[in-house]
Amino acid sequence: MANQIARPIDAILPDLEALLGDRLSTNASLRDAHGRGEGMMDCLPPDAVAFPASTDEVSQTLKLCNAARVPVIPFGVGTSLEGHVAAPNGGLSLDFSQMNHVLEVHAEDMDAQVQPGVTRKQLNEHLRDTGLFFPVDPGADATIGGMCATRASGTSTVRYGSMKDNVLALEAVLADGRVIRTANRARKSAAGYDLTHLLIGSEGTLGVITEITVKLHGIPETVAAAVCPFPSVESAVDCVIAAIQMGVPMARMELLDALSMHAVNAYAKLGYAEESTLFLEFEGNPASVAEQVETLKSIAEDFGGNDFQWADKPEDRTKLWTARHNLYYAALALKPGVRSLTTDVCVPISNLAQCIHQTHVALDASNLTGLILGHVGDGNFHTLLLHDPEDATEKAEAERLNAAIVEQALALDGTCTGEHGIGMGKTKYLSTELSQDAVDVMGSIKHALDPNNILNPGKII
Amino acid sequence: MANQIARPIDAILPDLEALLGDRLSTNASLRDAHGRGEGMMDCLPPDAVAFPASTDEVSQTLKLCNAARVPVIPFGVGTSLEGHVAAPNGGLSLDFSQMNHVLEVHAEDMDAQVQPGVTRKQLNEHLRDTGLFFPVDPGADATIGGMCATRASGTSTVRYGSMKDNVLALEAVLADGRVIRTANRARKSAAGYDLTHLLIGSEGTLGVITEITVKLHGIPETVAAAVCPFPSVESAVDCVIAAIQMGVPMARMELLDALSMHAVNAYAKLGYAEESTLFLEFEGNPASVAEQVETLKSIAEDFGGNDFQWADKPEDRTKLWTARHNLYYAALALKPGVRSLTTDVCVPISNLAQCIHQTHVALDASNLTGLILGHVGDGNFHTLLLHDPEDATEKAEAERLNAAIVEQALALDGTCTGEHGIGMGKTKYLSTELSQDAVDVMGSIKHALDPNNILNPGKII
Repeated sequence: MANQIARPIDAILPDLEALLGDRLSTNASLRDAHGRGEGMMDCLPPDAVAFPASTDEVSQTLKLCNAARVPVIPFGVGTSLEGHVAAPNGGLSLDFSQMNHVLEVHAEDMDAQVQPGVTRKQLNEHLRDTGLFFPVDPGADATIGGMCATRASGTSTVRYGSMKDNVLALEAVLADGRVIRTANRARKSAAGYDLTHLLIGSEGTLGVITEITVKLHGIPETVAAAVCPFPSVESAVDCVIAAIQMGVPMARMELLDALSMHAVNAYAKLGYAEESTLFLEFEGNPASVAEQVETLKSIAEDFGGNDFQWADKPEDRTKLWTARHNLYYAALALKPGVRSLTTDVCVPISNLAQCIHQTHVALDASNLTGLILGHVGDGNFHTLLLHDPEDATEKAEAERLNAAIVEQALALDGTCTGEHGIGMGKTKYLSTELSQDAVDVMGSIKHALDPNNILNPGKII
Repeated sequence: MANQIARPIDAILPDLEALLGDRLSTNASLRDAHGRGEGMMDCLPPDAVAFPASTDEVSQTLKLCNAARVPVIPFGVGTSLEGHVAAPNGGLSLDFSQMNHVLEVHAEDMDAQVQPGVTRKQLNEHLRDTGLFFPVDPGADATIGGMCATRASGTSTVRYGSMKDNVLALEAVLADGRVIRTANRARKSAAGYDLTHLLIGSEGTLGVITEITVKLHGIPETVAAAVCPFPSVESAVDCVIAAIQMGVPMARMELLDALSMHAVNAYAKLGYAEESTLFLEFEGNPASVAEQVETLKSIAEDFGGNDFQWADKPEDRTKLWTARHNLYYAALALKPGVRSLTTDVCVPISNLAQCIHQTHVALDASNLTGLILGHVGDGNFHTLLLHDPEDATEKAEAERLNAAIVEQALALDGTCTGEHGIGMGKTKYLSTELSQDAVDVMGSIKHALDPNNILNPGKII
């Protein structure tokens, strides 16, 4: 191995090998592949990568690591944008790709128990014949475990909520190897502290999630999707606000600005109008969908949105949402060699138009290219700040813009992260957003549950 | 004062008086009124009662109490059923009746900021002209602060969720007087540990809630309610299960067994059939309600429910739901001098019919009278176990039945409490339900945030 300095893990490598056999590796390229997600952070590889096959193996591994003070970093498929999987202090990456089984589906109770390595697409494939589906859709085919850890959400959150709203119970391994269950399968419970929600969004710093009980939903009878361009970002956002306030139960409401539409067209050779555009989805029974569509069309008209392009057939809808989901890659393809620093603020919806407007003003005054897209029904939008990662000036400018966007969101009663998490990238904003006292409370809880700070150190706190 | 033994509070009474003036009292009957909720526990009065008027006063009070190791017990309106407000170690009851202001309503964002002493009916009265309402309805006109503390739910939870689903953010005072905000008004956030949900359901043991940001919902265009008798409890429950599984978006689905219907009739001089009965509410736009009604009528017919009595006018609906909400008092009126030990189990809906059946079998074999009512759409039901609180044998029999019902719920993958909380009454079940390790984790968190154990000691842990 390259690193010749004595590291804590050296003392337990033989024990880990005895436990995991060839499911433990110190291969350099494998370690590099586990040292960064999709964000802009530098690669910080772990000392080794483990592929546990059971909760018991996770527990045994954590006991060894805790005794030897070896950092443990859970790893799903590495789609994190905030450096969650990086190993700033070395240690062991726990890759859950072998714990990827759907354990039980209770169709009558509309829930399922899955291992953390199951991806959302895999789960929905598994559910195909039940008439049920798991709704949380962050775009990437992330693992359910990773989505729990970052409190993920996405395009369907305006209708179905985020991970926080779609998990009934967790099994987790604590830093010292103890295994807990946070709840059972009852739909609600008032039994003690809500450890389920404490772990959701804790980014692997309080416990390692080894099993998840998710809520399922009935596949709607009818689905219709459309894209509609608007004269400006503001008018598109105003349309969304009006729809929310009128209680139209939209399934998805996504905004792409003009430059995003240009990227989408160029990437997938499509011919959408290159203006601020809403991607919309309606669902329900046929009568309800027809009514929603009529209501939304009349709202959109008030804000200058007249040119609806409909996708009624499943394959057309898939094409439409694939275009939307590929925007990240489409943006990167605009300029060879660029990476994206992706902002993630979320504000009360009444402040959304102002926040997006201020962001456009900041982008206009910058030499960087930025694309805006948003889960606007939730008040959440992203700016893809394209920059050359080798160019220190561009990198600094991207960081400066990100900080400015966060500051304006906080001033508008919003959050620095709607769904990507704190990771390593946003620790500096957490105390500004919630006060140092609140961060200290988080630190007290962290210390109580992980006194040796082995669980994903350097993240959140 | 009656109690002549030196107590920790004696050392700080002058300071508390200086801080609170005549909003501090050691009056014996006032203390007694704060020493028990509506459950069957004995009265355990605090040493004094404070009526703080601001977050700052709560903070100053907690600093004094923490330094002197004086227990602090938050008090809303005392509708707890599990002894949450009792003072087993004496101390100071914090009565929030003077912190009962609706601070801000953001109609455009569909949220409101309220003080903890605001009751749910007061909030909805305040919202009257906005077209919005706060949906969580536990029956009693509890305070929003108390409902947060116990993670309350109720008749509308099948549609709108529980307190856990309807609170965006909290302000809370920690044991040492520090004031934290857990989140801002953004609809979602992935910023750090979810302190909001850690506090919701923590029953005053981790922090004292001083401000709540709640989600509001649009008042539906059309509402229709009905009662429908069924041949048996099982057939009524099967109707509910089928409706849930078919995705009918019911607003309320409440079960009352035959004896409950008898009590309701006797108490309010009504003429309902004295059979197992569903109380149902439908809402939405006119077309959607009409469709829901047709679907539910056809499901009900399959299970022998044919005789729908409709309440279309608001005053008729109020009468119907008042009858339902008064069942607790109607049950107590069945026999002079009785009290109720109220069970609160919740199971996955596929196990609900079995759990209720087993409960009826247990009641048939007992000499006590028990009435069953349930938020059956959530899998949650209560048994009102009537007994003479002066009769040790009856009291023991009620406890035995409660334990038996909890045990059968746990065996059916359920919880000992769907919505009433652990309090003093259910601490013994918590480790059985979630394992001693999970309870130990709760204890670690409690110790980290309240090392002197002054916050509502003796509850949950």
